[in-house]
Amino acid sequence: MVLLNGDVKPYVDIDTLKSSEEITIDGCVHRIKDMGAISFIIIRTGQFLVQCVYEESECSFEMPQIKTGDNVRVSGKTRSEERAAGGVEIVLESVELLSRPAAEYPLSVFKNKMNCSIETNLDYRSVALRNVRERNIFKIQQGVADAFREYMKSQNFTEIHTPKIVAHGAEGGANIFKLKYFGQDAFLAQSPQFYKQTCVAFFDRVFEIGPVFRAEKHNTTRHLNEYTGLDFEMGYIDSMYDVMAMETAMLKYMMKYLEENYSRELSLAQAELPKIDEIPSITFDEAMEILGFSALKADLDPDDEVKLCEYSKEKYGSDFIFVTHFPKTKRPFYAMDDRENPKAALSFDLLFRGLEITTGGQRIHDYNEQVEKMERMGLDPNDFSSYLDIHKYGMPPHGGLGIGLERLVMKLLDLSNIRQASMFPRDANRITP
Amino acid sequence: MVLLNGDVKPYVDIDTLKSSEEITIDGCVHRIKDMGAISFIIIRTGQFLVQCVYEESECSFEMPQIKTGDNVRVSGKTRSEERAAGGVEIVLESVELLSRPAAEYPLSVFKNKMNCSIETNLDYRSVALRNVRERNIFKIQQGVADAFREYMKSQNFTEIHTPKIVAHGAEGGANIFKLKYFGQDAFLAQSPQFYKQTCVAFFDRVFEIGPVFRAEKHNTTRHLNEYTGLDFEMGYIDSMYDVMAMETAMLKYMMKYLEENYSRELSLAQAELPKIDEIPSITFDEAMEILGFSALKADLDPDDEVKLCEYSKEKYGSDFIFVTHFPKTKRPFYAMDDRENPKAALSFDLLFRGLEITTGGQRIHDYNEQVEKMERMGLDPNDFSSYLDIHKYGMPPHGGLGIGLERLVMKLLDLSNIRQASMFPRDANRITP
Repeated sequence: MVLLNGDVKPYVDIDTLKSSEEITIDGCVHRIKDMGAISFIIIRTGQFLVQCVYEESECSFEMPQIKTGDNVRVSGKTRSEERAAGGVEIVLESVELLSRPAAEYPLSVFKNKMNCSIETNLDYRSVALRNVRERNIFKIQQGVADAFREYMKSQNFTEIHTPKIVAHGAEGGANIFKLKYFGQDAFLAQSPQFYKQTCVAFFDRVFEIGPVFRAEKHNTTRHLNEYTGLDFEMGYIDSMYDVMAMETAMLKYMMKYLEENYSRELSLAQAELPKIDEIPSITFDEAMEILGFSALKADLDPDDEVKLCEYSKEKYGSDFIFVTHFPKTKRPFYAMDDRENPKAALSFDLLFRGLEITTGGQRIHDYNEQVEKMERMGLDPNDFSSYLDIHKYGMPPHGGLGIGLERLVMKLLDLSNIRQASMFPRDANRITP
Repeated sequence: MVLLNGDVKPYVDIDTLKSSEEITIDGCVHRIKDMGAISFIIIRTGQFLVQCVYEESECSFEMPQIKTGDNVRVSGKTRSEERAAGGVEIVLESVELLSRPAAEYPLSVFKNKMNCSIETNLDYRSVALRNVRERNIFKIQQGVADAFREYMKSQNFTEIHTPKIVAHGAEGGANIFKLKYFGQDAFLAQSPQFYKQTCVAFFDRVFEIGPVFRAEKHNTTRHLNEYTGLDFEMGYIDSMYDVMAMETAMLKYMMKYLEENYSRELSLAQAELPKIDEIPSITFDEAMEILGFSALKADLDPDDEVKLCEYSKEKYGSDFIFVTHFPKTKRPFYAMDDRENPKAALSFDLLFRGLEITTGGQRIHDYNEQVEKMERMGLDPNDFSSYLDIHKYGMPPHGGLGIGLERLVMKLLDLSNIRQASMFPRDANRITP
């Protein structure tokens, strides 16, 4: 019998390192520079790299044979050293080998920028992420998600966890994964749409950060088959512009939050945060005019998104632009139709640096209106009876949106392929690692 | 063209209500008490209930016909009223109808405790959650998840999002959901096990809050087929007791956090938080002795868990008890074997008020040891080659655990069925709503 009182060994972070004299650090041997009488061993922890020095003439212990990739516990004294990363190095007093890999790294992870194809990077993902710039992307991803959560909570949104195994797709179309669920047909949620709407009926404002599944067949640099959705939904809106105002305020907060809390990571990524003052919003018809199309298209294609962002940057100095009032034929059945323009839905996209990162809008809250729209679109309302319960028993006017976390990070960090912004990406050809 | 600057309408929370004189509130008509010359209308917002008063003699506007379930915008003056919940009521100055349900509620949600079976509650989940005690469970759930996250971050853990579509089950057994992934066989993740281990190699300490899928066939009051896992994994441990110490410290923090931030919700739920000073930890062999089994069983069953918790409460005044060194036959292939007891794995459970809420342990970090254990257990290491890359290219000694969020909340709130702690539970018979 043992009694546990919760005493935990403190973790050495970068600040402890800088302020400490005698220190013990656990880490991985990232690189060894053997200069004969003196060796430099770069240790990688989960937070930083630090240079350790072994001088035969000064160190009184015998150095064990260590190799790149070994996990070690080192002790020593810190001292200032301008040439070392972080301005501090450790003069070693002991080195203990904790574990040793069975093979050498197949990639040069110690280099500043890894020199390999995206395919090789992903094939050896567990190694590639040991590169400090590769893993840094996911530190920033954490910051982006935290900023979203903090802002939503400050606005009285409640965080929810809704099921990913569902009886019906919310977004329509063929891009949905099917599974067998105890003999029934079931699907993987294409979005938390139905559930976040349901929660508006009792929490007014909700958000969710969770996986979203899309069975997109095409492999592009901007699609993933599983991604992380930042979703919110809010009740008692006067129009979809309330949703867009909320997103604008959230993004402003996010950039400030990242600047204040992730400056080291942003600098390592050489990222330039967008300045957000005001975000312009144009209608789909206005977009067609700007793009020089004489007739309306049904949707925007990737080139259009790039051009509209160039327009926004040039004319308004904004890296973002909203496009509203999309043709309703391309928008899901829960989107509210525009009373003033029978062809349009009260639905919007937000484009950022040439890429759509958000889809949102006002939803239908009236039961009869929803049933009629389903029927008009060739859907059987009986298939959606449990979803329609929310309308039957009453919903306030409401709307919301979904942001693709990986797309947002991709554009914040100017990455060329969305797979770089997913730790373990899923595409039509890849389910490992 | 419109410019959005991110001005958002402030949300009226309980504190605004108390400090405000003139107020406008959006909400749902929760209950109407018509006394003739005076009517009391209880408005439900996402945060609170408030009594609104309409007196024919005092109110200068004509009251629209409103019914329970209507969504309204009301304005008026607040005044102290001891008999009203929250000590404040609103004397109405205007009522605007925003939306109206198509049918009356099938359940009496305005009652303090709903008087219906769990099946009816779940069938009409979108209505049942409009009861303030029902929704309150998920406010507390948010607090539990936030406390976990905050504590983990304070200990330098990085939050990760790992794929739920996977090529292999991590936990073995038949309780895994299969799906077709572009012609390949794929599965839904039974845990983030492989991925959180992978992340230890470059972040040292990671945690994830996300969905976990188990194709358990039996319908019990303690199993869900989809639940929310609170997972963490940490490198450079000296033994699994480092993991258990971390969990103990996290739980202490959680109870303090809930007490400080969720006192209103805990009081509504009539919840009694456990006092955590020290958590006793016994070995599986000791557990057998306490339970009076002369021979070792392979695992603990639900009755054993109840008895061990009674023992812990009586002997140590603790609502929790760790059980360690489980027989390795019932533990997964990644569990490290105990060098001192060849029958045991370095694996533990944490029991809380009669229920297992955590499984964790030290993992194998050595490549050859992992390959040999797989072979001994009849698994083909070639099937796990991308997972084994983490061992091949080096892992520090590490361990971690997974906590079932719904189980933890169930026991914190003394709920009799785990479905009450899941907003939209999935069991063998239920995938809607």
